[in-house]
Amino acid sequence: MPRYKAVISYDGTNYAGFQVQNNAHTIQEAIEKTLKRLNGGKPITIHPSGRTDSGVHAKGQVIHFDYPHKREAEKFRFALDTQTPDDICFLSVEEVEETFHARYLAKEKIYHYHLDIGHTRDPFKRLYSAHYRYDLDLGIMRQAAKDIEGEHDFSVFCATGSSVEDKTRNVYEVIIEEVSETELRFIFRGNGFLYKMVRMLVGTLLKIGNGQLPVDAIKIALENQDKKMTGPTAHPEGLFLMNVSYD
Amino acid sequence: MPRYKAVISYDGTNYAGFQVQNNAHTIQEAIEKTLKRLNGGKPITIHPSGRTDSGVHAKGQVIHFDYPHKREAEKFRFALDTQTPDDICFLSVEEVEETFHARYLAKEKIYHYHLDIGHTRDPFKRLYSAHYRYDLDLGIMRQAAKDIEGEHDFSVFCATGSSVEDKTRNVYEVIIEEVSETELRFIFRGNGFLYKMVRMLVGTLLKIGNGQLPVDAIKIALENQDKKMTGPTAHPEGLFLMNVSYD
Repeated sequence: MPRYKAVISYDGTNYAGFQVQNNAHTIQEAIEKTLKRLNGGKPITIHPSGRTDSGVHAKGQVIHFDYPHKREAEKFRFALDTQTPDDICFLSVEEVEETFHARYLAKEKIYHYHLDIGHTRDPFKRLYSAHYRYDLDLGIMRQAAKDIEGEHDFSVFCATGSSVEDKTRNVYEVIIEEVSETELRFIFRGNGFLYKMVRMLVGTLLKIGNGQLPVDAIKIALENQDKKMTGPTAHPEGLFLMNVSYD
Repeated sequence: MPRYKAVISYDGTNYAGFQVQNNAHTIQEAIEKTLKRLNGGKPITIHPSGRTDSGVHAKGQVIHFDYPHKREAEKFRFALDTQTPDDICFLSVEEVEETFHARYLAKEKIYHYHLDIGHTRDPFKRLYSAHYRYDLDLGIMRQAAKDIEGEHDFSVFCATGSSVEDKTRNVYEVIIEEVSETELRFIFRGNGFLYKMVRMLVGTLLKIGNGQLPVDAIKIALENQDKKMTGPTAHPEGLFLMNVSYD
């Protein structure tokens, strides 16, 4: 059966996350419903590079699925793009080898986290960034961000509820950019991220930047798996899965 | 009684426009509800520079209202900003003379209209721009836009349902900007605009740019009040009231 890879973008505001669950709308449900209709009523299961949580967005999520018919890629993309809801977009669709797997073969992921640091909250950013109204020392945050980089056991930055056994991940780069006077962008690039890891790292960086945790809090948290050296989980609406790379 | 002027910004997505009406949430209702609560349960009426329609946004709407108590401006702004819903923001509040009037004294208004011209619709722009997927000749549109500028009777670009008698307006400037490869921004600056006038002008410019109306359609429409030379009313979600000026 032909296997297809698709790159999708979605506004997570109105969804209870990616993965199918009872009594809640999810991205997976919306896409599988469309695929089922295109496939004459027979169900198709999709597999993402990883789940995203309720309210989290994606500009470059990757999924794969097996579909019993050969379809011309651009026509297939157009049908999926126009027949899924307006807040889900199919950027590309291509036929791939049967061995392709969106999750197992992912080599690198990039996440962005948007923070609105304006004095008054911008109504047009409220769904796409978290608001933070307190003082932040960017120099200290950038120094602390260096401690995230490299290969570490990130168990202390993994929310309960994860079934993953090996919690070692390699974070290649953490960048904190000043997009404008009222907006910060955190960029995380690594071989993978644990359940809520990016949001827990952002929450910790904010607590460090505001002086409520020492600059070496992340270093200590990782070395001693010390929860007291971590901050709260930052709000979901600031988080975007930007890109997933494969060999 | 002290009179206050406020500059507000709002995401119109979840409102049935500015003006209070039965059985629908409006911007006016949300703000007046907050003012009533701050005023110990006694109602306060607000007056905008002009109404905005269902789904239309504002980044610089101006309102005025009379409030029986003297309030320190920044504290009053903060109270209104935090107690109104998240999609309404108070950018500034100041006490003004009793003769100030947000509508009668407005000298100039600026509207922006955002158009998403990407091949695939961007989920993150869907609430804040209209999507147009057909060819557009920008050169021809810019030439046609010149015919809007100046003092004209704009009756043919006014939707039915308006109670305004004098339909002469002076449009100082119409600019069409390429914000990026996938986004256009139309800027309208004038002494005032009729009911749905900006959206009807955008709809007409799009029809001209797509070759469905001649380049001089607006000129003919204005000279002969000829409805056949106008396009449809463009969707509300692309429209932003950006600024209102006073002497």
